[in-house]
Formats: sequence, structure tokens, C-alpha cells
Amino acid sequence: MAQDGSGAPGRAGLGALFDAQAVAVLGASDDPSKFSGRPYQLLRQGGFAGRVYAVNPTRATVQGDRAWPDLASLPEVPDLVVIGVPAARLADAVRDCAAAGVKAAVIFAGGLAETGEEGRALEAGIAAIARAAGMRLLGPNCMGAMNLRARLYATFSNTAEDPAPELGDGGIGVVSQSGALGNFMLTRAFDAGIPVEKWITTGNEADIEFAEALDALLDDPRLRGVVGYLEGARDGPRLRAALERAQAARVPVALIKVGATEEGGRAVRSHTDALVGDDAVYEALFRRTGLRRAHTVEDLLELGRVFSTGARSRGRRLLLASISGGVGVIMAEAAVRAGLTLPPISAGCAAALRARLPFLSPSNPLDVTGQGGSDFALLRDALEMGVEDTGADMVICFLGRVARHEETVTAYLDLLDAMQAERPDVLFLTAGMFTPEQERRFRARGRLAFADPSRAVACAETLAALNESFARAAEPAPALPAPDLSAPDLSALRLPRPAGTPDEAACHAMLSVAGVPVPDHRIAKDAAGADAAARAFDGPVALKILSPDLPHKSDMGGVRLNVAPGDAAEAFAAMLADVSRLAPHATLRGALVMPMATGFEELVIGARIDPQLGPVVMAGLGGVFVEVLGDVAVREAPVSEASALEMLRSLKGAPLLEGARGRAPRDLPAAAAAIAALSRLAAANADWLGSIEINPFALGPEGAGGQALDCAVTLADTQTEDPA
Amino acid sequence: MAQDGSGAPGRAGLGALFDAQAVAVLGASDDPSKFSGRPYQLLRQGGFAGRVYAVNPTRATVQGDRAWPDLASLPEVPDLVVIGVPAARLADAVRDCAAAGVKAAVIFAGGLAETGEEGRALEAGIAAIARAAGMRLLGPNCMGAMNLRARLYATFSNTAEDPAPELGDGGIGVVSQSGALGNFMLTRAFDAGIPVEKWITTGNEADIEFAEALDALLDDPRLRGVVGYLEGARDGPRLRAALERAQAARVPVALIKVGATEEGGRAVRSHTDALVGDDAVYEALFRRTGLRRAHTVEDLLELGRVFSTGARSRGRRLLLASISGGVGVIMAEAAVRAGLTLPPISAGCAAALRARLPFLSPSNPLDVTGQGGSDFALLRDALEMGVEDTGADMVICFLGRVARHEETVTAYLDLLDAMQAERPDVLFLTAGMFTPEQERRFRARGRLAFADPSRAVACAETLAALNESFARAAEPAPALPAPDLSAPDLSALRLPRPAGTPDEAACHAMLSVAGVPVPDHRIAKDAAGADAAARAFDGPVALKILSPDLPHKSDMGGVRLNVAPGDAAEAFAAMLADVSRLAPHATLRGALVMPMATGFEELVIGARIDPQLGPVVMAGLGGVFVEVLGDVAVREAPVSEASALEMLRSLKGAPLLEGARGRAPRDLPAAAAAIAALSRLAAANADWLGSIEINPFALGPEGAGGQALDCAVTLADTQTEDPA
Repeated sequence: MAQDGSGAPGRAGLGALFDAQAVAVLGASDDPSKFSGRPYQLLRQGGFAGRVYAVNPTRATVQGDRAWPDLASLPEVPDLVVIGVPAARLADAVRDCAAAGVKAAVIFAGGLAETGEEGRALEAGIAAIARAAGMRLLGPNCMGAMNLRARLYATFSNTAEDPAPELGDGGIGVVSQSGALGNFMLTRAFDAGIPVEKWITTGNEADIEFAEALDALLDDPRLRGVVGYLEGARDGPRLRAALERAQAARVPVALIKVGATEEGGRAVRSHTDALVGDDAVYEALFRRTGLRRAHTVEDLLELGRVFSTGARSRGRRLLLASISGGVGVIMAEAAVRAGLTLPPISAGCAAALRARLPFLSPSNPLDVTGQGGSDFALLRDALEMGVEDTGADMVICFLGRVARHEETVTAYLDLLDAMQAERPDVLFLTAGMFTPEQERRFRARGRLAFADPSRAVACAETLAALNESFARAAEPAPALPAPDLSAPDLSALRLPRPAGTPDEAACHAMLSVAGVPVPDHRIAKDAAGADAAARAFDGPVALKILSPDLPHKSDMGGVRLNVAPGDAAEAFAAMLADVSRLAPHATLRGALVMPMATGFEELVIGARIDPQLGPVVMAGLGGVFVEVLGDVAVREAPVSEASALEMLRSLKGAPLLEGARGRAPRDLPAAAAAIAALSRLAAANADWLGSIEINPFALGPEGAGGQALDCAVTLADTQTEDPA
Repeated sequence: MAQDGSGAPGRAGLGALFDAQAVAVLGASDDPSKFSGRPYQLLRQGGFAGRVYAVNPTRATVQGDRAWPDLASLPEVPDLVVIGVPAARLADAVRDCAAAGVKAAVIFAGGLAETGEEGRALEAGIAAIARAAGMRLLGPNCMGAMNLRARLYATFSNTAEDPAPELGDGGIGVVSQSGALGNFMLTRAFDAGIPVEKWITTGNEADIEFAEALDALLDDPRLRGVVGYLEGARDGPRLRAALERAQAARVPVALIKVGATEEGGRAVRSHTDALVGDDAVYEALFRRTGLRRAHTVEDLLELGRVFSTGARSRGRRLLLASISGGVGVIMAEAAVRAGLTLPPISAGCAAALRARLPFLSPSNPLDVTGQGGSDFALLRDALEMGVEDTGADMVICFLGRVARHEETVTAYLDLLDAMQAERPDVLFLTAGMFTPEQERRFRARGRLAFADPSRAVACAETLAALNESFARAAEPAPALPAPDLSAPDLSALRLPRPAGTPDEAACHAMLSVAGVPVPDHRIAKDAAGADAAARAFDGPVALKILSPDLPHKSDMGGVRLNVAPGDAAEAFAAMLADVSRLAPHATLRGALVMPMATGFEELVIGARIDPQLGPVVMAGLGGVFVEVLGDVAVREAPVSEASALEMLRSLKGAPLLEGARGRAPRDLPAAAAAIAALSRLAAANADWLGSIEINPFALGPEGAGGQALDCAVTLADTQTEDPA
């Protein structure tokens, strides 16, 4: 955990990494193709306006410049030191930096924590030296960082030697836990002409970890978006805060987050544990904060390209126009799959369009035919009539080969400018057989151009989703944000950590505190008690063994359903005998006696505390939906009732709750209230809770409510470490 | 339907389109930028070795050449005529071609069947003229065809003016129903350096339709694959035959088939009708024939690029190696998602690898670090040890920026050649930050290179799947091929078309003929009959109203379950009264009386006859799986028992049949036998059947068999037209 990081008194932020005025390269090599030679060359010859010092005790000069024997001999204390020495000399180097009062150091060397015990100890040692001195460390085993606008290259990336795309008013940030992959992303960004403001790789994260690096990027007001590569967050709360900050600041973030196909060695003790894997927890965070998740570098960089333009959309209503009917259909199908809206052309507008362009097919997609591609006055009329009629938020126009021709592209760009001037709120995107040069011309005019029409549709979907995410962040907390233990409704739910796994009666008590309805029930210690308890209810009862040791009590004979009140004593005795035989070592505390519930739909509602990212809540339909299909909705806890309702509606099995197959519609507000209540309970007790699961939650028809028929709680394996 | 096409006596194949020796352009313009000028220019200046004639009655010369006043005045009868005249003069032009004995004509003009009734009549007229003369027509409203090796350009595509990629030993074919989209695909292919042998667009398909065009491409032994765009097949059987031919010839085919997001105005009268839409029928055909379906032009052309190399894989075992650990993880996750196998490195091999490269992480993916990227002797050792140890069929090596450098790429290509010589069966793929030039160098050496590592994984999956598809085609019919009504097992199942919709007794009789078990049952005409029938069985019975007019009889009070034999007469009378009240106009023929079935799992088994593509069979689990989730498997009918078993195992709900949640495993062979039997019945009666559905098929535990509890049949709206 890096929680002992920048929050500690005396520790600086990451300013020195990106804004240093004086930089020293420790172990600077005379050979610029080396690890320790390239940064010096980049800093000296790449246009950096600050001071740069080569420190090398074995040489008088480095790359033609004066070399200094050590940090102490420099004319000033550098803000930033790039450490180019191998692992064996690292501890001394870091100690020298700390002694000199350096603000931050970048360490390239590998062979540390990633290699085993010895390396881990060495790495912990240098981290401790830095921490004691209030100095920040990037790496080890990283490729460093760059501020490309300031031409501050604290890196040995050879991509940095290539000409960078023009930055203009702003560009994107790149953050990667992997150095080589960070370099790959940078190369791809340069190839695609994507302006990059800042770039940072975190490597082994002895000090600065991913979330703090991401957060530091957000300090730059010119930042138009961030793309990155994440294997796993060391500091979950900081990641959450950084993503919330980006969302509130309307800065889009896209990540490749690996780890989706395998889950670590997490203990699995309930459906919640089994179905809410680490990846589902990240997904819940990403969904709320509007993060765009990519699975390939190509798709990630395509998002980066879109972000870098600063384009925004006000909604998801899309007008498609194409000189090829076939491309129109392909785009329309992609739009429908992506959940975009294709508002239809009205009959009146269709007649007007046909009067203007006889061959045009007046629907959405608009097939403007080759005629529209060769006569831009016609094309403009068609687009403007279509936008006016449909109220579209976005327009994609497919130009085909027209996009290859210098003069037509010029005329088309003028047409876009004219239309944009009249409709500043509408976003115009263009697809066509662009050459890289023509695409650059679009970019220079601030227009989005796509060589593949389906990529244009994907961009439209991205921008519509970002718009919704940003709007959500601006609303007054529709879903409650990250757990705030000081909120009054949560502090009232704080409970002491139980001494051992709670039995069902204790679980029921916890649910009652949270406000989740539980059935009227009595505890019977013996057969006579069971008899008395059963007779107190009207009609048949259920008997359930009371034991902290039997999470699967029905498998052990510990459940008797539909018992007539007069048979309760006998049923109690038989159940006790069965359980004693099948689970001889279980502590038995009697039985719960409760009325039989009938006519309900079964839900499973659970919550789990992720060690990194905190509490999440899960809901699904009981039976095959959860157990065979894994059909569950997962969100960060706590959730509001409105969010809980949205969770239920997102289930594949939702039609069953809404009255499909002739069933009675269920009391969804009651289920949502229970989900929200359980989520608050989990959030309030995230410091000791492992997981809590209601299975089943019996949900009655509309207005009839619901109740938790069974509940199990597990405790966290160890108490969560207290920060600081 | 184009079934009256080339099969008719006296009609030529498409040879003249691709192999003409003499070509005339009718209405050839002097202006090469025009519709009717460009083909003449392309043919005269593009390198075509045959004779080319300009026919234009209004000019003495065309583009500097002699112009001929009409076809009759030419010194020879051209094999192929490119008709560049507008729609108004089309009939005369086609008549002249027919009179002259031309073999084939290409018609560009639009404004025909796509514009309405008048155009349809005009188009039908020219088709009739051509048909009568045995002349083939391509178009109208198309962009023509090309044989790029022969430089035979019967097209006005402006892409044809661009320099085409070298053809070498072979290239791909392109077939598109849309002309503009076909041109877009060609441009993209040229941009990507993909060699294209032949290209054809079918437009309105007055004569030559998509499947025949595809089939004609397959005549070329140099063809390495086909990519195309399909909106809908006019000739389903021919499409099936062409795809089977490609599969047997090991020629991969990839298509964009639109129409997935909306279904036509098909009548929906059963679950089978509702769940087996047109797109599901195409999917069934594509799945069997190994067709790769793309949804974007970019993905389609990427498949074309892979096809054009002629690369093959012998299996799906993949070894990954990467100079970046992060890229290794991204590739591994993509491989797992794609269903590829990542065989692990053995402990012995891991030790040997670590001895050779201390920093290497010896697993699959192999992280060879920057060291492996700079020392190719080490890299070769690592790859060879990994291949030897894992028995990998394919290797993907990610080189990172190394792939940018001239000299390292040369060394790496030599390394690949050396490894390939030792392991001719292993396919080596390379990913890295390729420049277009470096990628070309790989292509020239016959090596697959990818600028995105995930694209390399997608290619590996494609090749593994193609290998399996080709192997399947070579097996002796594991799934029976397309319906062959002369096969003895099918001819025995041929039944006469019923006069009206069959009632349930008649449906049961049909199932019995097919060999699907039905419950022992009796038909009761009145209450006394019901009483007698019920007493003949042991235990409670079910009564079901017998009527051809009540597909949803339980909604009309027409089903009584769990009736004690003594109560059957009274239940019959009550049921009749209810149905008479709720469905006063339904013809009632009494009731079916059968013993109650218990302890079974419900399946839905159906078959539907698609008007274009013929019979398909469907299976799913009853209840929520079919009705809420649409979880069904669809295959072309007939299927073998083995294929039917695979259908059941492919269901999301399959675990329920295999004994999940403590249930008894079900008698899957009995279900498979019923699916196969129903599929044969449907195939044998495809000429009159609309759909047939067993719902539920009651499937007992292992060894207990199953039976069709209820069945409904619909008739095709009209008899299928008889070809010729």
C-alpha cells in the first residue's frame, strides 16, 4: 500500500516530475543510445528550457558537456534527479539525492522487487530513505516520465527522439504501470498524430503509484483526456478519488485494465464472493465514473485520438448520411448495437428532400447517393434539412472516395464550418477513404475524421456516454458517492466487529438495524420451545437450525419447511438429530421458527468488501439466474434506492420481476430499498465485514413488500490496516 | 428469385465477365472521368491484353481511338459488353447485345427496380431479353466487375486507376451487392497492400446474383479467400452450395451480412418463429460452413489481409512471447477470450530458460524483456525451447519498437526463416510497432506482421477456426449436409401437405412417423369417452382440447392437468364449456386424454422453413430460458444426433441438464434423438411446412427418455415455387 505516500507531512506532490527547472542525470553516459545516456541527450537537445547537469564521477565530460562528480558539487540542488545507475548502486544514489534535498527522483533500474525477496528488501530500503527525506520516487523498473510541452524528458524512451505531434491548445495524458507498454502507446500516439501533454510510467511503484500519477495528470488544465494501462491499483481510494475528479472536471479517461480473465486466490464463501470477482468491482467503479474500458491498444489509442480533439456531444440522437447505401446500413446497425438513437425523418421532410434530390432515399440513414458526393450544395441542403427535422445531436457523413481529393475536401471543410456556425451545438463527424494527409487536414480544422465508418459510430457512442457521465457527476448525488462514514445515515449503522461468525439470529438483528425487513421469528432452544413458537404463528412454519458453523444448513438437514404448528416439536427433534449426525462438531444454539412465506420471487442480495476498492453491493434473481447464468448487477456501495432499482432493471431476468409470463409484477421498490439498505450497512462496517448475503430475499407482488428469509455474514480475514 | 438463371439450357456461366478476350464499351464517352468514359480508358490503358472497342454512334473517335457506330459494325462479336448508356436507352442496348450474340453485359445505370414499379418493369424486360438470348447480365445499378490479373476492367470504379498491390501467386476475391461499398472495400484493400484477384458487384441482380458471383470467384485456383458484403441472398440454395464449395476447397470466406438488427415482416406464430429470425438462419449456415462474419469494413479487410497470405494453422495451441510484460498480458487475455489454448511451460523448460535468460519470466506468455529484443540469439533460443516444450501450433512474438529498425528487422526475418525451416508446421506471427514499410517487408517474405498485438491474436483465432472448419468439411458428414430429399431416411418421412392446420392429434401422428416419442394417449369425443379413456390409464391424467384453431389452448381454458380418473367426465364437460365461451368460433373435436408426466425438465424443440435458406432446427430449455432469455441453439436441418447433442451443450442453461444444483442429470441422448428426428421431419417436408414446435418436450433423468407433450404445426403461407 502506498497510502503512506504524499499525504504524509513533508512529502511533496509530483510537481517536480513535470515542472522541474533543474534536472540532474546521475550516472549520465557519454553514449546517448544507453539507458543513462539518452535522457541526458533528450534533455540537452530536445528543447528543455531549464538547467541540466550530467553527474558522473568517472568522466570529465559527458556528450561534450562538463560532467560533475557528484550531486553535492552541483551549483544548485536539482528539483529532479534521473537515476541511471544499476540496482547495485541504487541505495547510495537515493541516499545522495535525499541528502541533497532533491524533490523527486526517477529510477529506471530493474532487478528489484520483481525478482524476489532480496530485490524486495532493497526496494523497500530505498523507499524508506526517500520517505524519511520527503523525496518522491518514480519507479524502479519504469521508463520515467515526460512533460512534452516543457520538453522535460525524464525517460530513456526512444520514442521521445521522434518528432512529436503539435500540441496546440492541449493534448492527452498517458499513464502506464508497464514501461514498455507505455512506450508502445506513445509510439502509436505519435503515429496517429495524437498530441500528448504528459506521459508517466510507474513500474514497481515503490512510492508513486498509478492513481497518484493519474491524479497528477489532472492538475494540468490543458489536459483533454487520459489513456492508460492498469494491472491493479495499490491505492483503491485514491483511484476512486482520481476518477471522480476526472469525471467532475469533464476529463475523459480510458484504460486497459487487465485481470479480467483470471481471479486471484480470493476466498469464495458465498454467491456474492463467487460472482463479484475483482474485475466486477473495478467494473462497478468504472461504470459510475464513466471510464471507457478498452481491451486493445488500438482501441485505446482510438479513444485517445477522440479525446485529444476535445469534441463533445449533447446527446445520443444521431443522423447518418452516406453516399453509399451499404455503408449507411452498416453504420445504422453499428449505431443500434451501440445504443444510439436514430430519429426518423418525418414524412414532410422526406417529401421536401425528395423534391430537392430525386434520387435520395429520405430516411435515417440518408442515402445521398453519388450525387450528394459530387454536389455539395445538395449535400448541405440534405444535411441541414435532416438535422432540422430530427433534432440530431450528432451527424456522421460518409463521403467515400470524395475524401481523397484535395479540392473536394477543401470545399467540404468549408461546408462543415458553415453548417457548424449555424448549429454550434451539433457535432459533425466525417467518414471516408481518407489518406493520412487528408485526415491531418481535418484534424487541423478541429474536425473528427474516420477512415472506417464504424469507428465514427463508436466515437459518437463514446461522446454520448461521456456526456451522460459528466452530467451524472454534476447532479446532486443521485447515487451516493464513495462511502462517507461521517454521513449520519451511515454512522448510525456502525456495528462492532463480532467476536466470531454471526449465526442467523445475529444476522437478522444486523439486517433489522439496517432496515431490511426480516420475518417475524422466534428462537426455540428445544422441542417445547419450538412447539410454543410455532403455535404463536398463524399457519405452517419453517424451522431453521441456529449455528454459526453451518453456512449451508439445508445440506446438513438443518431446514424444515412447511411444518404444521402441531408438528413443530417433533420436527425440531428430528432436525436436531439429523444435524448432529451430519455435522457433529457444529455448535448448535436451537432453531429459528418463522411463518412460511409463499408466493414470492427469490432474489439474492449481497455485499462484499474489496480490500482495495472497498464495499460493493450485488443483486440478482435467485435460482438459475444467479447460480447457472451468473446474472447479477454489481455497484459500489452504498447505492441510492434509485440506483438499486436501475440494478434490478439491468438484470437479464428483469422481465420476470416486471410481470413477464403472466406473473404478477413484483414489489420492485421494496427490493430496491433492501439493496440500498444492505449497501449502507456494508459501507458503514467496511472495516470488519468480509461479505454479507441475503439468500433468498423473498419479494412479494406489488405493494406486498419483501423480506430476508436467510442471511449469512463473513468477517474480513484481518482488520483493514489503518492509513497513516 | 434468380433460380431461373444460369441453370437454364443455353445460358453461359460467368466466364465472359472475367475471361473475355474482346470487350466493347457501349456509349463510350470521350471524357474518361465519366461513367461511360472511364471503363474505356481503363481497358485501353490499364494493360488489358485483349481487344477493346468503343461503340458510340455520335462520334468518329473516342479518347483518340476509332469509334464504331454500333455492335453490328464491329469486326468481331465481343464476349463482353460494358453498357454505359442511361436507363432510358437500356432496353435497346440490351436488345442489340442479345442480337449480336454477346455472352455477357455489364449495366451501370441506376433508376431501375430500386425506384418503383416503372423501373421494375423496365428491369424485368431487359432481364427477359437477355434470358431469351442466353446472355448474362451483371447489374443494373452496379459498379461492374474486374479481373485484376488480366487487367480486365468492366467497371467505372475510380479505385481501379490507382496502382494495385502486386498479385504474386494469388490474391483474394471481393464480392458486394453494393457498388459503392465494393469500391470502398477495394480502396481499403489497395491501401492495406492486399492483392485482389477479382472483384464483382451485383447491384440490382436482374440476372447474376450474389451467390453465383461468389461461386464464379471460386473457379479461380489462385484465389486465397473471399471478402464480401451481403444484404440478403436471392438464391439461398446456391449460397449454401457456394459456401460448402469454398469450405471443401479450403478457401476462407468472410462477409459483412447486414440485417442483424431488424427482422422483416415475418409472421410469428410460435417460439420457433419468434426466436429463429432471418439472421439466426444465416448464422446457422455461416457456422456450419466456417464463414467468418465481420461487422465493420475494417475488420473485414483485416480478414482479407490474413486470407491473402495463404497462412494456415494446424491447431489452437498458442505460444506468446513479448519484450513487454504488459503486452504479453493483453495478448494472453485476448487469447483466452477468443478460446485459444495457452499451453503452460513445464518446470524443466522454465529452469532451462531461466538459465539461458536470467531476466526472462518463463511462463506463457514468455516475457523475454528488452534483452530478448536486442539479442536475437537469446530470443531464438527462448522461442525454440518454448515451442518444443509446449508443442505450440502458433507463436506470436511482440517486438515493440525493434520492429522499426531496418537492420533488426532483417535479422529477425532471417531468424524466422531459420526457425520455420526446422518447424515447417508451426505458424509464426509477429507484432510490433511496424511502419508501413517494415510491414511490407514482412509481407514480401510471406510473414504475418501486425501493428497491434491484439490483431495478431485475432488472426491466430481466425486461422485456428478455419482449420477446424476445413477439417469438418473433409470428414464424412458428421452433421448431415444440406437437405437431400432423395436420401432414404428423409423420403420415408415425406408427408402430404395437410388441407388445413393440423390439430394436436394430427401433430402427434406426424411426430410418431418421425420417431419422436409421444405419450400414450386417447381421443375422447365426449364426457363419457373422457371417462373411459382416463380409466384406461394408471393414475391422474391430463385433458387437452382438440382443435386446429387454438394454438394457445391453455389461455382458452382448454387444458386440465392432474385430473383423477374418476373426475375426467366432469372435467371434460367443464373444459368444453369454458372453451366454447372463450373461443366461440373454434372448431372443437373433443379432447386428448393422456397420463400426467412428472419429474421432467421442459425443452422447446422447433423447426422452421426459411423461404430462402430452407429448414432450420432449434432447441432450448423451456420456461425462462426460452421465453425471457431467448437461449436457443439453431442449426440447419437436418442435424445428426451428435450435432443435436452439441446444440444442447451450447445452451447457457446446459448445466441444468447436466445435473447442476443437485438435480438429476437428464437423458441428453433422448433429447438429441428427438431434435435430430424433428430436423429430418422438417427437411423432408420443407415444401409445405411453415414451422413445427414441440413445447414442452418432457425430458426425464438419464435413461428415462423423453416425450413430446404438446406439438403445433403451421403451414407455409404458399407452396414454395418450383424452380424452372
